[in-house]
Amino acid sequence: MKVNIAEKLALFAEHWKPKVVAELNGQQVKLVKFQGEFVWHHHKAEDELFLVVHGRFRMDFRDSSVWLSQGEMIVVPRGTEHRPVAEDEVAILLFEPASTVNTGNVRGNLTSDAEWI
Amino acid sequence: MKVNIAEKLALFAEHWKPKVVAELNGQQVKLVKFQGEFVWHHHKAEDELFLVVHGRFRMDFRDSSVWLSQGEMIVVPRGTEHRPVAEDEVAILLFEPASTVNTGNVRGNLTSDAEWI
Repeated sequence: MKVNIAEKLALFAEHWKPKVVAELNGQQVKLVKFQGEFVWHHHKAEDELFLVVHGRFRMDFRDSSVWLSQGEMIVVPRGTEHRPVAEDEVAILLFEPASTVNTGNVRGNLTSDAEWI
Repeated sequence: MKVNIAEKLALFAEHWKPKVVAELNGQQVKLVKFQGEFVWHHHKAEDELFLVVHGRFRMDFRDSSVWLSQGEMIVVPRGTEHRPVAEDEVAILLFEPASTVNTGNVRGNLTSDAEWI
């Protein structure tokens, strides 16, 4: 019934593929590991929250960048183009509508359906 | 734009009064400190997520209890009676609809409107 974040993170190694660990009110909590540079994208109808579980990464916007470290979070409003970049591996907790696709308006190699773990 | 959880937690000391730190998709992220025993209550239309930032607490249900420590989370489905109990102070991140009142169906001394910090 409870979810241990560290135990869930130990279950997968791949980058950029969010894993669902909880669902409530039409929203999902996902865990994901980033390393490298993602694609620029936006989500048409979904605001997206990124909370750093460990490590650090940079969220690029078209006109600015924000560094986020463990214990820090940011909300990316719907319609806002963004691109996460992580020099070293970072573990992230996402809160977002269950309908959210990781690459938003862009479909490509990095597009991944979030599976439950 | 970003939120540092530790910095936000340093801004208040009182127990049982959730503070809003982010909003997205009609949901809010709140921080709250628990110590002692809360009231039994449920939320009619809201599922509620509790994520332990530091410390530990026990979530009582009518037929069971679950201990939660740092890095662990639990979803309490709408309609489910619950009561958080913390022997020592614990810091919690809540993710729930913006409409959620902390004491749910019970109004009393512990009922608190969540204010932004």
